[in-house]
Amino acid sequence: MSNQTRFLLSENDIPRFYYNVLADSPVPPAPVLNPITREPVTPDFLSAIFPMEIILQEVSQERYIEIPEPVREAYKLYRPTPLIRALRLEKALDTPAHIYYKYEGVSPSGSHKTNTALAQAFYNKISGTRAITTETGAGQWGSALSMACRFFGMDLEVYMVKVSYEQKPYRRFLMETYGAQVFASPTTRTQAGRAILEKDPNSPGSLGIAISEAVEAAATSGGAKKYALGSVLNHVLLHQSVIGEEALKQMDMAGEYPDMVIGCVGGGSNFAGIAYPFLRYNLTEGRNTRLIAVEPKAAPSLTRGVYGFDYGDTARMAPIVKMHTLGHDFIPPAIHAGGLRYHGMAPSLSAFYDAGLIEAVAVGQRAVFEAAVLFTQQEGILPAPESSHAIRVAIDEALKCKETGEKKVILFNLSGHGHFDLSAYNKYLSGQLEDYDFPEDAIATIAQRLPQVSIPA
Amino acid sequence: MSNQTRFLLSENDIPRFYYNVLADSPVPPAPVLNPITREPVTPDFLSAIFPMEIILQEVSQERYIEIPEPVREAYKLYRPTPLIRALRLEKALDTPAHIYYKYEGVSPSGSHKTNTALAQAFYNKISGTRAITTETGAGQWGSALSMACRFFGMDLEVYMVKVSYEQKPYRRFLMETYGAQVFASPTTRTQAGRAILEKDPNSPGSLGIAISEAVEAAATSGGAKKYALGSVLNHVLLHQSVIGEEALKQMDMAGEYPDMVIGCVGGGSNFAGIAYPFLRYNLTEGRNTRLIAVEPKAAPSLTRGVYGFDYGDTARMAPIVKMHTLGHDFIPPAIHAGGLRYHGMAPSLSAFYDAGLIEAVAVGQRAVFEAAVLFTQQEGILPAPESSHAIRVAIDEALKCKETGEKKVILFNLSGHGHFDLSAYNKYLSGQLEDYDFPEDAIATIAQRLPQVSIPA
Repeated sequence: MSNQTRFLLSENDIPRFYYNVLADSPVPPAPVLNPITREPVTPDFLSAIFPMEIILQEVSQERYIEIPEPVREAYKLYRPTPLIRALRLEKALDTPAHIYYKYEGVSPSGSHKTNTALAQAFYNKISGTRAITTETGAGQWGSALSMACRFFGMDLEVYMVKVSYEQKPYRRFLMETYGAQVFASPTTRTQAGRAILEKDPNSPGSLGIAISEAVEAAATSGGAKKYALGSVLNHVLLHQSVIGEEALKQMDMAGEYPDMVIGCVGGGSNFAGIAYPFLRYNLTEGRNTRLIAVEPKAAPSLTRGVYGFDYGDTARMAPIVKMHTLGHDFIPPAIHAGGLRYHGMAPSLSAFYDAGLIEAVAVGQRAVFEAAVLFTQQEGILPAPESSHAIRVAIDEALKCKETGEKKVILFNLSGHGHFDLSAYNKYLSGQLEDYDFPEDAIATIAQRLPQVSIPA
Repeated sequence: MSNQTRFLLSENDIPRFYYNVLADSPVPPAPVLNPITREPVTPDFLSAIFPMEIILQEVSQERYIEIPEPVREAYKLYRPTPLIRALRLEKALDTPAHIYYKYEGVSPSGSHKTNTALAQAFYNKISGTRAITTETGAGQWGSALSMACRFFGMDLEVYMVKVSYEQKPYRRFLMETYGAQVFASPTTRTQAGRAILEKDPNSPGSLGIAISEAVEAAATSGGAKKYALGSVLNHVLLHQSVIGEEALKQMDMAGEYPDMVIGCVGGGSNFAGIAYPFLRYNLTEGRNTRLIAVEPKAAPSLTRGVYGFDYGDTARMAPIVKMHTLGHDFIPPAIHAGGLRYHGMAPSLSAFYDAGLIEAVAVGQRAVFEAAVLFTQQEGILPAPESSHAIRVAIDEALKCKETGEKKVILFNLSGHGHFDLSAYNKYLSGQLEDYDFPEDAIATIAQRLPQVSIPA
C-alpha cells in the first residue's frame, strides 16, 4: 500500500481477452423473443440488423473471447486508462476508507462507450458492413461510434433525439467533426419517423423513436447497413470488461483489493464493465466484494421495477428480453444524466440482481450534483452527471467508514467527463436543479403494461 | 525505435526542478520598465501585485529551481502527461516522418495552463495571499487558476471579458464549479471598469480592460489580494518547462530525438514549455533541433511585429518590456484561437527569435481548422484551436518529408483539448469560418505606436 495517486499500466497490459460473465453465471439465460411473434428469435431476425460475429458473441458461453488486434491497436490511443486514488477526496471526507476510481473519461470521445464502439465497428467492418446506423440521446454513444466508424472507414448515420439535437449542439458538432451524419429524429427518412411526424409535426422525439428509425434504416438497407446499440446487450457488456480487467491489475499494483465496486446504471454497460471481472472472483474464488449498481431515483428499474419480459424500446420494434423494467412505455423525467434515462436494464445484470449477486441503490439528482461538485473541487476532474451517481454512493460509503472507523477499500467507475454537461452544473449551483422521484402510480401498473408472452417468467 | 503509441512515465518521473533558460541564454535580459515613469521597475512596484517568491523567480538566473513538494503532489493528478506517437496521422499523410505529440489536454482544466496555475497558487499561499485576481479571455487560464486556488484554499476573482462571459458560458460554469467568482468585465468593482462603463455602458470588454481591472483589484487590496498572469512572464514560462523535461525522457523511451519541436504561441508559454529544455541542448551540447513557434496570421507578433519596448497591456498599466509586438493598442481580429490573440510576445522568446535561436511561422485560421479536423479524425482527440496551429505546421513538415523522403522526427505540443470550442468547428465544417490576414496598414505604424523610452532598444 502506497500513497501513489495514479496507477498506470503500459500498452502491453491492455487486455487480450474480453471476459464473458455468462460462462460463470449460476443463472440460466432467458430466451430473447421476437417483438412481433413473441416467440424465441430466429437467427434471421437478428442478422437483418447485426453482423454474424456480433450475434455469435451475443449468445456465446465462452469464458474468454480474444480481442482482435486492430481493436487493441485502437485501444492504445487511450487504454489502459488510469486508476486514480482519490487522496484529496479522502482527506476532505476525513474518512479512513481508501477510495479509488477508474477514469474512462480519458477516452477521446469522453466516455467508456468507446470500448464497445471500436469493437462493434471492427466486427461490422470485417463482415462487409458499409455503413452503421444508431440512435443517441445525450450523445456519448453517438460520439464514440462516430470516432470508431471513422477509424475503421465506415459511414455512420446517427438518429439523435430532436430535443437533444437542438439543446446539445456541441455533441452533434463533435459527431460531425468525426465525419458522421446526424439527423434530428423523428426524420422523414424512415417510415417510423414519417408516421410520428404525420401525427405530430413538432414532435420533440424520444429515444424510443430514434431506436425505431435506426433499426428500420438498417433492416431495410438490403444488408449494406447494420445497426449498433451502446448498452444492454450481452456483447456490449462483454466489450466493457476491459475496464474491470485493467482495474484488477491496478488494484494489485496498489496492493489492495476492493471491498466494494460501484458504478452507475442506465442500460448497465459501464457498471458491468468494471464489476463483472470482480464478480468472477466472487463466483469462482469465494471473494465477497460488494457490487453496487447506482441508478437514478427518476428511473429506478432495479430497485422499483418488475423482473419480467419487456420490449427493449418504446416503439416495440426491438426484441423482448427478460429484465428489470419500469415498462417500455414509461418515459423517465428529464434528469440531466441522459444516459441513465432507460426503462429497462441489461438482462444479465437483472438476473444477477434477482439472484442477490449484486446490490442496487437509487439516488436523487440534487444529491448526485452535490457529490459531483465536491469531487470536482477535490480531484479537479469534472465528472459526467451519469458517473456522478457512482461518486455519490462512493462518498456515502466512505462517510459510513468514518463513523465505524473501518478502513474499507472502495472502487468506483468514473465512466466519463462532464465537459458537455456544464449547464446542468450551473443549474445546480444556482439552486435551480429539480429533484425527481419515481412516480408511485407508475410502479403499481408496471406488471399490467408488460407484453403477454407464453414463456414462463 | 518501436511501434508503441503512448509513452508513459510514472509519477516518480515528474520533474523535481523547473528549468530556467535564462541561465543558459546568450542574450542579456532587457530591463523591465515602470509603465508610468518608463524607468526600470523597483521591487515596490512589483510587490504590490506579486508575492516575493514569484518576483525572485521572475529575475532568477539559477539554472534549476526546485519544484515545491505540494506542487508536485498536485501535479500527480495528471502528470506526467502522455507522449503519443501519431501513427494513424502518419499513415494518413503517407509520410516517412515520425510525428510525436505531448498531450497537455489531460490536465483536469483541459490545458497546460494548470502547470503554472498550481505553482503560482502555491507560492501565493505560502506568502500569505488570501485571494488572487486575474483576467481571462477564452477561459483556459481562468479555469486552470480556479482549480489551483481551490486546491490551495484561496479565493479567486476572475475578470472575464464580457463578450466571452456571454458567449462562452460553459467556461464560466467550469470556473464557478471550482469555486471562483467570475465577473463580466468591465465591472463597476474597479475604477478602471467604471471609467470604461461611463464612456460606453455597453462595452463588450477586452483583455486589456480585464487585465487593468484585475491588477487594480490586487494593487488596491492592501496586500490581501495578489494578481496572477497566465503567460508572457519569465516565471510562467519557467513553470511550463515540466512539459519539455518530461518530453525529453519520453523521446528517449521512444529511442528518438526530435529534429524539430513545434508549439503555438500567443504569449509564448506552452511553446517555451516544450521548447526551452530542448533549446538547452542546442545551446550547451551542440544539438540542432529546430524550434518552431507557430502564430496566427491575425496576430503575427514574431513574423511581422517590431522588436522594441512596449506595454504588456492595452490600458498601459502593466510593465513595459522589450518584446516582439504589434503595438499595445492593436486589437487582433476575433479568431477562434482566443488564447493567441495577444499583441506582444514573451520577452525571452522575443530575444531568442531575434537572435536566430528559434524560428516562427504564421498560419491562417482555415488552414488551422483543416489540420484540426484531419487530426481529430485520425487521432480521435479534438484539439483546441490554439494547439491546432502547431498541428498545422507539424503536418506541413511531415508532408515536406513525404516529398523529400526524409525520416524526420517531429515533436509538437498539443497544449489543450477543444471541448469548449465546438461551435468554431461547426463554423469551419459548414464553410462559414473566415480567414483573417494581418492588416498591412497596421504593420507600417507599429514603431510609431510604441512608447518612448530612454533605454536604448
